[in-house]
Amino acid sequence: MKKIVIAVDSFKGTMSSIEVCNIIEDGFKQILPNISTVKVPIADGGEGTVDTFLTALGGEKIQVKVQDPLFREIDSFYGILPDGKTAVIEMAAASGLPLVEEEKNPRLASTYGTGELILDALNRGCSKLIIGIGGSATNDGGVGMAAALGVKFLDQDNQPIPLNGEGLEKLHHIDLSGKDHRLENCQVLVACDVDNPLYGKNGAAYIFGPQKGADQEMVEYLDQNLQNYAAVLKKDLGLNVQEIPGSGAAGGLGAGLVAFSSAQLKPGIDIVLDSVNFSEVISDANLIITGEGKIDGQSLRGKVPVGVADRAGKSNVPVIAVVGDVGDEIEAIYKRGIEAIFSINRVAVPFEEARLRSKQDLFDTIQSIARLLKIAAW
Amino acid sequence: MKKIVIAVDSFKGTMSSIEVCNIIEDGFKQILPNISTVKVPIADGGEGTVDTFLTALGGEKIQVKVQDPLFREIDSFYGILPDGKTAVIEMAAASGLPLVEEEKNPRLASTYGTGELILDALNRGCSKLIIGIGGSATNDGGVGMAAALGVKFLDQDNQPIPLNGEGLEKLHHIDLSGKDHRLENCQVLVACDVDNPLYGKNGAAYIFGPQKGADQEMVEYLDQNLQNYAAVLKKDLGLNVQEIPGSGAAGGLGAGLVAFSSAQLKPGIDIVLDSVNFSEVISDANLIITGEGKIDGQSLRGKVPVGVADRAGKSNVPVIAVVGDVGDEIEAIYKRGIEAIFSINRVAVPFEEARLRSKQDLFDTIQSIARLLKIAAW
Repeated sequence: MKKIVIAVDSFKGTMSSIEVCNIIEDGFKQILPNISTVKVPIADGGEGTVDTFLTALGGEKIQVKVQDPLFREIDSFYGILPDGKTAVIEMAAASGLPLVEEEKNPRLASTYGTGELILDALNRGCSKLIIGIGGSATNDGGVGMAAALGVKFLDQDNQPIPLNGEGLEKLHHIDLSGKDHRLENCQVLVACDVDNPLYGKNGAAYIFGPQKGADQEMVEYLDQNLQNYAAVLKKDLGLNVQEIPGSGAAGGLGAGLVAFSSAQLKPGIDIVLDSVNFSEVISDANLIITGEGKIDGQSLRGKVPVGVADRAGKSNVPVIAVVGDVGDEIEAIYKRGIEAIFSINRVAVPFEEARLRSKQDLFDTIQSIARLLKIAAW
Repeated sequence: MKKIVIAVDSFKGTMSSIEVCNIIEDGFKQILPNISTVKVPIADGGEGTVDTFLTALGGEKIQVKVQDPLFREIDSFYGILPDGKTAVIEMAAASGLPLVEEEKNPRLASTYGTGELILDALNRGCSKLIIGIGGSATNDGGVGMAAALGVKFLDQDNQPIPLNGEGLEKLHHIDLSGKDHRLENCQVLVACDVDNPLYGKNGAAYIFGPQKGADQEMVEYLDQNLQNYAAVLKKDLGLNVQEIPGSGAAGGLGAGLVAFSSAQLKPGIDIVLDSVNFSEVISDANLIITGEGKIDGQSLRGKVPVGVADRAGKSNVPVIAVVGDVGDEIEAIYKRGIEAIFSINRVAVPFEEARLRSKQDLFDTIQSIARLLKIAAW
């Protein structure tokens, strides 16, 4: 019996990775009913990360009340995997931009709620955290998160600073004495697909501030505050976060997680593939289907299809990609081990129209691929 | 060694069928160098028909001077196939709309030049004519064509009428005494993909007149003239052309060819596939690639992919289609024996943009199909 592993990213703006996996599985099984399939929806660390992990691996969704970015109580959630020890947290569920849509303000927004999610997971005995940090509303360097776990951020009068981007202006020293000691023995993997430093022209405020509501003046202000934060981290913790690629992710939450936990920042694709034991899953597979919304030269940098192909290459399992758009310069993609690339576009229409028919187009494309394999007596 | 037969229509507005064939062959051979290919570009009876036949079958292109639709001498051409007895003629090369672009006027345009092409072929000893009648500028019922071959069209004063749509108003009787006797023993196959009658609301003038430059008043006038023409054909030749599906093709040239030669009107696809001995060509093939610009419910009516699939089904050779757009309701297409349908669209852009990249997109799509077959160890 042939085995197909379906390991796809979401198609941004049209389908979640879970939806893509299900459609591909259905399309294949209608034509080739005797194949077996394994679905590995890949999360990118943003909204949907928890559901994606729970779908791929099973586990429990934990409901918990936390503070939103503006310190209003909301219903949030995270996941605990079947081992009972691994929590999957998406920061967007507590500190995400959609939670403050009309009131977005990175001076005021805090990651405190994300810290509360972590705290709840520790209270339930988790000793491994997988944290997706995409989609943040914040620019607080993760001080809100750390404060929820007992770290104190103080001004020169030894008073607590506001736990947001504004508060960092007055940060003078950090008191670790109350930090939750369980963080020491907790493995923290952060799904992080950007390599921006904490501050500067490529830093959190400059690159991501505008989409969170900052105008140019506020960007410069927030950037200065992050510089002050970095200086205090260096002084009190001996840590140069600016040198860590990805420290500027999620308004500096990347830096905060590294500073106050044992966090490693890794591409989301690697964390997912490790978590599902991907190399083992594919070891007896005959074909791997990967995919994403658009494949192009960018896809070489930590994106799903190339990450999948890298591991497949070691197992000599052929990989094909099914994508929305095929960008230019795909020769490099082929060289990385993706054997064939099929677009799901089946009519020449712009994206606004194509997105409305993407599910059916994906299904029809998969059916044609399956039918071709059937012709080839695969 | 695997054998692939490539039998495709043109992609209207982007690529000729010859171009499509060549790109598909190149795409396959780069990935699967050990396959053999046979290319069967399919003509639709319009511009390019002669080249398509000569490409598929070899033969000679004959240059000849004829009268254009407005009786100006032009350089025209037709083809003679390697048997030396079969001429391939496209009426568009003598009486086509592009020849009169700015002066198009179906009252005045004549098929006389098409008759001259036929005459030249007879003079060279041809005894079989394949005539494509797409793209006409005319609405003369084929009287121009017939007059070039000796038929006399006379008014009630026994004077010759003008050999155009206008002239038919005064047609009173037809004198066959001078008709070229070689037409009697000449097989005439007319590639005709429409089934319109000569006159009436679905007839030549109403349906095709406007695109040839007729306003509503002229359409009605031309239609009345075709009715008169039909009446005279019935009176003098005992022939009811109105009943023949396709008699209204090419401004009634369909009717004229039936009336004054032994012409059979057949779908272009059937004429081509018969001419190339398609059933024999595919008898040892492993796969057939067909295609057209857009596949949809319309494709069931005499279009290329379904025509190819009908014959392939009898030989049990699998057929896949590569197309520009995939329309809706393709289940019926699958039922007719096309196993899989791939669109060449690789980005979500409107046709005006897609057409500019169609050659590369076709090539890339074919490569992915070939790569998938390679994965399947085909």
